[in-house]
Amino acid sequence: MSILNGIIPPILTPLNPDGSLDLDSLDNLIEHLIAGGVHGLFALGSSGQVAYLTDAERDAVTARVVATAAGRVPVVVGTPDMSAARVIEQAKRAEELGASAVVVTAPVYSLNDAAEIAEHFRMVAAAVSIPVIAYDVPVRVHAKLPVDLLVQLGQEGVIIGVKDSSGDDVAFRRLVAANRAAGSPLTLSTGHEVMVDGMALLGADGCVPGLGNVDPAGYARLWDAAQRGDWDAARAEQDRLARLFEIAFVPQGRSGDAGGIGAFKAAAASLGIIASPAMPAPMQGLDDADTERVNAILTEVGLLT
Amino acid sequence: MSILNGIIPPILTPLNPDGSLDLDSLDNLIEHLIAGGVHGLFALGSSGQVAYLTDAERDAVTARVVATAAGRVPVVVGTPDMSAARVIEQAKRAEELGASAVVVTAPVYSLNDAAEIAEHFRMVAAAVSIPVIAYDVPVRVHAKLPVDLLVQLGQEGVIIGVKDSSGDDVAFRRLVAANRAAGSPLTLSTGHEVMVDGMALLGADGCVPGLGNVDPAGYARLWDAAQRGDWDAARAEQDRLARLFEIAFVPQGRSGDAGGIGAFKAAAASLGIIASPAMPAPMQGLDDADTERVNAILTEVGLLT
Amino acid sequence: MSILNGIIPPILTPLNPDGSLDLDSLDNLIEHLIAGGVHGLFALGSSGQVAYLTDAERDAVTARVVATAAGRVPVVVGTPDMSAARVIEQAKRAEELGASAVVVTAPVYSLNDAAEIAEHFRMVAAAVSIPVIAYDVPVRVHAKLPVDLLVQLGQEGVIIGVKDSSGDDVAFRRLVAANRAAGSPLTLSTGHEVMVDGMALLGADGCVPGLGNVDPAGYARLWDAAQRGDWDAARAEQDRLARLFEIAFVPQGRSGDAGGIGAFKAAAASLGIIASPAMPAPMQGLDDADTERVNAILTEVGLLT
Amino acid sequence: MSILNGIIPPILTPLNPDGSLDLDSLDNLIEHLIAGGVHGLFALGSSGQVAYLTDAERDAVTARVVATAAGRVPVVVGTPDMSAARVIEQAKRAEELGASAVVVTAPVYSLNDAAEIAEHFRMVAAAVSIPVIAYDVPVRVHAKLPVDLLVQLGQEGVIIGVKDSSGDDVAFRRLVAANRAAGSPLTLSTGHEVMVDGMALLGADGCVPGLGNVDPAGYARLWDAAQRGDWDAARAEQDRLARLFEIAFVPQGRSGDAGGIGAFKAAAASLGIIASPAMPAPMQGLDDADTERVNAILTEVGLLT
Repeated sequence: MSILNGIIPPILTPLNPDGSLDLDSLDNLIEHLIAGGVHGLFALGSSGQVAYLTDAERDAVTARVVATAAGRVPVVVGTPDMSAARVIEQAKRAEELGASAVVVTAPVYSLNDAAEIAEHFRMVAAAVSIPVIAYDVPVRVHAKLPVDLLVQLGQEGVIIGVKDSSGDDVAFRRLVAANRAAGSPLTLSTGHEVMVDGMALLGADGCVPGLGNVDPAGYARLWDAAQRGDWDAARAEQDRLARLFEIAFVPQGRSGDAGGIGAFKAAAASLGIIASPAMPAPMQGLDDADTERVNAILTEVGLLT
Repeated sequence: MSILNGIIPPILTPLNPDGSLDLDSLDNLIEHLIAGGVHGLFALGSSGQVAYLTDAERDAVTARVVATAAGRVPVVVGTPDMSAARVIEQAKRAEELGASAVVVTAPVYSLNDAAEIAEHFRMVAAAVSIPVIAYDVPVRVHAKLPVDLLVQLGQEGVIIGVKDSSGDDVAFRRLVAANRAAGSPLTLSTGHEVMVDGMALLGADGCVPGLGNVDPAGYARLWDAAQRGDWDAARAEQDRLARLFEIAFVPQGRSGDAGGIGAFKAAAASLGIIASPAMPAPMQGLDDADTERVNAILTEVGLLT
Repeated sequence: MSILNGIIPPILTPLNPDGSLDLDSLDNLIEHLIAGGVHGLFALGSSGQVAYLTDAERDAVTARVVATAAGRVPVVVGTPDMSAARVIEQAKRAEELGASAVVVTAPVYSLNDAAEIAEHFRMVAAAVSIPVIAYDVPVRVHAKLPVDLLVQLGQEGVIIGVKDSSGDDVAFRRLVAANRAAGSPLTLSTGHEVMVDGMALLGADGCVPGLGNVDPAGYARLWDAAQRGDWDAARAEQDRLARLFEIAFVPQGRSGDAGGIGAFKAAAASLGIIASPAMPAPMQGLDDADTERVNAILTEVGLLT
Repeated sequence: MSILNGIIPPILTPLNPDGSLDLDSLDNLIEHLIAGGVHGLFALGSSGQVAYLTDAERDAVTARVVATAAGRVPVVVGTPDMSAARVIEQAKRAEELGASAVVVTAPVYSLNDAAEIAEHFRMVAAAVSIPVIAYDVPVRVHAKLPVDLLVQLGQEGVIIGVKDSSGDDVAFRRLVAANRAAGSPLTLSTGHEVMVDGMALLGADGCVPGLGNVDPAGYARLWDAAQRGDWDAARAEQDRLARLFEIAFVPQGRSGDAGGIGAFKAAAASLGIIASPAMPAPMQGLDDADTERVNAILTEVGLLT
């Protein structure tokens, strides 16, 4: 079993209403997740609003998650930046602060081809001692990591796994098959939080569900059902979680970063997991009407009473 | 006249073959540009490969350009990063190091809407004392800055001008008209280095030509012709520079960052303006065959003898 | 059960080497599919290269498929064209020729919004007496049909079902849930031929697999396993079919229309289902080396001996 | 001088309020355009809403434009369809009806590569006796015609010119230069109706302005100024026409086909050039408030009194 197996939520970064880090809420959230049965924690992912944090804030989050997790589950840390030279600086700090692994995207702002992106991962892996996990997130970095490139990097020992947020399930199924044919150098986790039943059925090794911040126990049950091959139970739990995921569609006409994560934060605050649904500027949180709609869904699926 | 009027090349960042900064070549390049008659310098733009530099390297470049320019021309400095919080850190350091203005893009990696992007610019402007120039570069940040938003930010005093690298000339003409109707709060510079004649004809206040690293005197002549309304002379000079720009199309099958800037660096090295055409990893420079093709074009337009 | 339930392959349009229709091969293919256990036939889909056929050729294909199927299975017919006015002409002819239903895409070439696209479907449905199936294929028409619009059209009785080739499985799961909540006015079929196990698990009513031309019996077995809830058997069959689907990736550097369908035709010809793998001009068929690679995969999965 | 030189408006297709063709208004429009000084007429272009017309309606329009023009100016006719086989049918009918040339796009719905698209043009050219003009309109066909392909087709005698609606002015300038280097086999016309001054300055041979339906005399004056090298006069006229083009931005939140052409039709109706601003279903015309805004702009630029 690798660091990436099972349910590893990309944890929210709780903020105070003034925009500063709310590390007490972060502790609460971590305890909530571990109590819910998750298998690991992913700090500083997109759900963690990593792009809106300064380096000092990134470090504070990493240090706190590592300290609070206290070895109970692995902590993997996101390091998005514009190029290998800059990602390496992020990754080295994460390593120093106790991360179990770093989660690395293709470059942003830069316009690189596949060979350069492969070399980007090699440069980062060569600079740190902890494992590297590739994060395939074309909606943000505007490049899809090719199946062959990922398997090749796995065989080279550059990466130990992939978090797939590409939404391209044909490519994911091909990746699962190609990885097996290569001796399974990679652990393959899906970011597709409403498709975990089907993804587990076809061979996913885990999931990184943003919605897991709201209902970690649901995802743990879903994963357990899938692991024992009870696909009808897995489907039923996933259907319930898909219904819960409708909170992400409550905010209409909001930006990609403000809507979904805003809804996750609103839900977590309504459930008392974090103190405030505050969003980092320039984003604003959900308005009252949308928060009520979120709460109605929480009630409907049995989380809010 | 504002800081952004006239020809302001986005200066290359010369590297040694080992990838370290070659600040002596940077000095040479700056002297070459000023001698060529440019009206300002834009450090840490896309042509400056800013994404591939660490913060320490960014600072070293800014400091050196400011020192070498020594007040002869303004120095504007690029500050691309993922969000306002991070851009502010870049911008404050640029201000401390003597930048005349900062050049700010929409967020990258983040997924924001127009209102959030407007607020992003307001946050940055509020955090520094030097002027802010908006850099509209959708090919990298994946969002086009709307005409109305830019004029609004100009009227608020948030930005003093725009570097337009959108390639959307209908929008640019509309921006010129809307800016005039609003009392011309903005100075409007095009990044369209092969369309300077047409853009000046319709009212551009300046140009930020990457190709200006290779032939600053050509762009100065082009601008002078346009300023005195000699459009046939402007067109003839632009046609010559468009022929020179074919160096950017010499490298076939290369990434967006490796091809064009690789060709500019190869040309600058062939002309003795910088010591080496070295590219930052993971990119590689042009091969010998492509360098010969670049040199042939340099010869054809009269730059290499 | 509706016309759209179960396995409904989008049938290839066999051609003679001179590009003319090979209707004898079309008969063979139809018998092969019905013998394989498919539940319906979809003529003039993208796999049928409908875009490359004149109206006279479209009519000849429709007439022959209807005649040869002879009521054993339903025949649905694709009617892609640029606007409702033109689609109506296609649909009326299909109805006259005996189609059981028409399969209608959003407009192409036209640039319409969601309300106009909804009205487009209403106009077509009002013009024919046979049912209308919506075909969601953004890769070709460059618009995704929204979940709400589809359920609304189902409730109005405008469409009876959806063939989903969007590749957006989150939207498909949401569509399944929204359709159920609305009383299931729609039959929902996936075009995702390598994800049928997972899609059936979450509630798909059928599949339209291009690969079903090559191995209809495999898809029938897969569907039967899914219907009886034997998800491990479904997964195993889908894995085998996913391995077979690798034929679509054999042709490298080919256009979207030439590669995959070229491979399907090459496989069908190698298996003796159709006489020739000929492609409509300006496309060319697979070269000998690629055909050998396709044959090797056919052998590996047990179809070719 | 070729058929494509000068100002060739893509003529609107006037409709009666019931959606049927209004051929009397078409006559009026043609007289208005010829009286305004245009050099040719382009029937069945995007501004002519060709996608919304049946083949019978296309033929009726072609026949009427040819008859009414009566040899005073050339009539080129658009033939968009899904593939060469279908475009050939459109082109043959246009030829029989007296078209001077056909205007051919890359295939739609089909997914072809550059070599297949080149062959597509060769197939069409081989099937008709009248000249073929390539229409580069990626916003509709989702493929940009490469500079080298166009010049190659020009040298082969397959096409006599290009209508460039790509919005990629760097590519257009490169096309002008490459065409000259090849001995000018092509006549190069821009669809960029607000950039005619700049495009003429760099060497465009003509323009196909949708806005020319509203103010043909303005475009004729602009073109005359450009032809005599009076660039300041050209710029002034283009600035006025760019102000007029703001009518296309009056309708907010409308589809790509409903907004701009809806505004052109509203303006033409307000000016009495056509009887009704009716749009083909499923599109609706401008509402009264937007029509008033259009009229205000018409008044401002001196067209409406």
